[in-house]
Amino acid sequence: MSLGEFDLIERFFWRPAGQGPRRAVVGNGDDCAILAPAAGMQLAVSTDTLVEGRHFLSTVDPRRLGHKALAVNLSDLAACGAQPLAFTLALTLPRVDEPWLAGFSQGLLALADAHGCELIGGDTTAGPLSIGITVMGEVPAGQALLRSGARAGDDLWVSGWPGLARLSLEAFRGSLAPSLSGDEFDLARLAMECPTPRVGLGLALRGLASAVIDVSDGLLGDLAHLLRRSRVGARLVLDALPVHPVLATRPLPQQHDCLLAGGDDYELVFTAPAAHRTRILALSDALGLPLTRIGAIQAEPGLQLLQGELDAWPDDDAPPREVPNRWTAFDHFKA
Amino acid sequence: MSLGEFDLIERFFWRPAGQGPRRAVVGNGDDCAILAPAAGMQLAVSTDTLVEGRHFLSTVDPRRLGHKALAVNLSDLAACGAQPLAFTLALTLPRVDEPWLAGFSQGLLALADAHGCELIGGDTTAGPLSIGITVMGEVPAGQALLRSGARAGDDLWVSGWPGLARLSLEAFRGSLAPSLSGDEFDLARLAMECPTPRVGLGLALRGLASAVIDVSDGLLGDLAHLLRRSRVGARLVLDALPVHPVLATRPLPQQHDCLLAGGDDYELVFTAPAAHRTRILALSDALGLPLTRIGAIQAEPGLQLLQGELDAWPDDDAPPREVPNRWTAFDHFKA
Repeated sequence: MSLGEFDLIERFFWRPAGQGPRRAVVGNGDDCAILAPAAGMQLAVSTDTLVEGRHFLSTVDPRRLGHKALAVNLSDLAACGAQPLAFTLALTLPRVDEPWLAGFSQGLLALADAHGCELIGGDTTAGPLSIGITVMGEVPAGQALLRSGARAGDDLWVSGWPGLARLSLEAFRGSLAPSLSGDEFDLARLAMECPTPRVGLGLALRGLASAVIDVSDGLLGDLAHLLRRSRVGARLVLDALPVHPVLATRPLPQQHDCLLAGGDDYELVFTAPAAHRTRILALSDALGLPLTRIGAIQAEPGLQLLQGELDAWPDDDAPPREVPNRWTAFDHFKA
Repeated sequence: MSLGEFDLIERFFWRPAGQGPRRAVVGNGDDCAILAPAAGMQLAVSTDTLVEGRHFLSTVDPRRLGHKALAVNLSDLAACGAQPLAFTLALTLPRVDEPWLAGFSQGLLALADAHGCELIGGDTTAGPLSIGITVMGEVPAGQALLRSGARAGDDLWVSGWPGLARLSLEAFRGSLAPSLSGDEFDLARLAMECPTPRVGLGLALRGLASAVIDVSDGLLGDLAHLLRRSRVGARLVLDALPVHPVLATRPLPQQHDCLLAGGDDYELVFTAPAAHRTRILALSDALGLPLTRIGAIQAEPGLQLLQGELDAWPDDDAPPREVPNRWTAFDHFKA
């Protein structure tokens, strides 16, 4: 059976009335969807495309791919402190593969439902496999978390366990020595293929964080964007980085590569006044999500990488030791 | 020189302050852009992707391609009666070709500026050439033009001169007999490569039209969507269709193929109560855009194609003659 373009959208992506979130005044099926943001709310908009061979391997489970395609977009909303509202899907497919589409739409819509985010429009085309999503969220006027608000003296934080996605990628590439056990590989692979967008954390950081960015291109690379937009510098203490047990067994240079230049982490890096430390640690408990203080913002531009104690200062007995930065951000046109 | 992903976006797509429209509270360069819809306004959202070899030929002038990629999206806003506000761009490129990018961004941003539509976010990836745009517009609450409002007795209208894009496509395919003159070819090619989204018409049709759709997949195919969503049928009079002078010289079956099943027209097909005929003709004069009455909505489902006088009825001396429908809508997975 050959499905046409319209059948395909209706069959795999439209929801019967009463199933899935309803956030739009007019949903799927007209020239445009119509959204009515609540009074006093602003709209946060972000877009991300996943291309086969670039952002995912052709062997990936379509359920996980559907999840990830939306997750990387929700991660951008999280970094703005926005509540997910709706998204559009532009799907380019080499052919109509029904089992693949069934898996993909299940993974996609399960994550969408979990966040009350409605699929309000889309487009399918024949061509090399790629998935483009534009996501929209609501945030109270003036409360969006931006990259530009970091101030000298703020603490520098990271959520979760960055680095596992990169570990998995290296394992897939066959370049990892020593190799991972089966369990370790499954866990790292899950981090890469099925990342959890930190939407709840983003919402809770409104009013707490001074600047936020999500880590998609590696911690150092994305931190550099935050610093540039905030016109500040930072000191980052390598020994303070959260090391997942699977990563902790690896050689130290490999740990650092994965933690600092990994990419595909979808954790949040954020800054906050030191006065909020206790509240942020309480938030970590409440969310069941590690939030780790890894450094501080300073007025001098640039990024200092240090080894030693997190709160040690140059005039202490055991002053922190500066280490050279041998990591650069991941760039799709250079990698 | 090899440009990275971020340089590429900044260089070709970001605008210096004071240049181009500013519709966003936070524009390009953060995790999300932040939009603040005006009080009482709803947001119309649509998305469309153009894929090389499917929606455009690799030989197309990048300026025209940039124009068209946004035009097809603005056409969806037009069909909803929405004022363009902002858009996101997901660009997948096989390589960084600077002259190509310069042309593409010029064509894209010139049309965006003409409609006050700000580029608020985007994404570039290496891969087979494709262009994904999601466009957002504003419409007063409850005033969006939908596909679902057509009522029995309404007039059926079409804007402009449909059919030229298909004529051009057939000429490119070498399947057109007799062949076009150089001037005819240029004109048809312009219609295909550089369509004009009917944004002004869409805005003016608020309160006049009962249902609207834009013609991207062929007049009959898109009309069928409108009829299905409105749960009505229509009679369409072939002899009433607007025939562009270039199309008028072609054999009649070819004219009909291009007019009815052409695709890529980006004209609006709309319905309106007969009481609005004079106002619609005055609007046509005011916009300098042909608006042609081509039939009527009727309660019985389905589409009747007729030859004869537009306002003739079955009991007239010269009753309209029904002709079989040999056209089907264009489908990217079947063509």
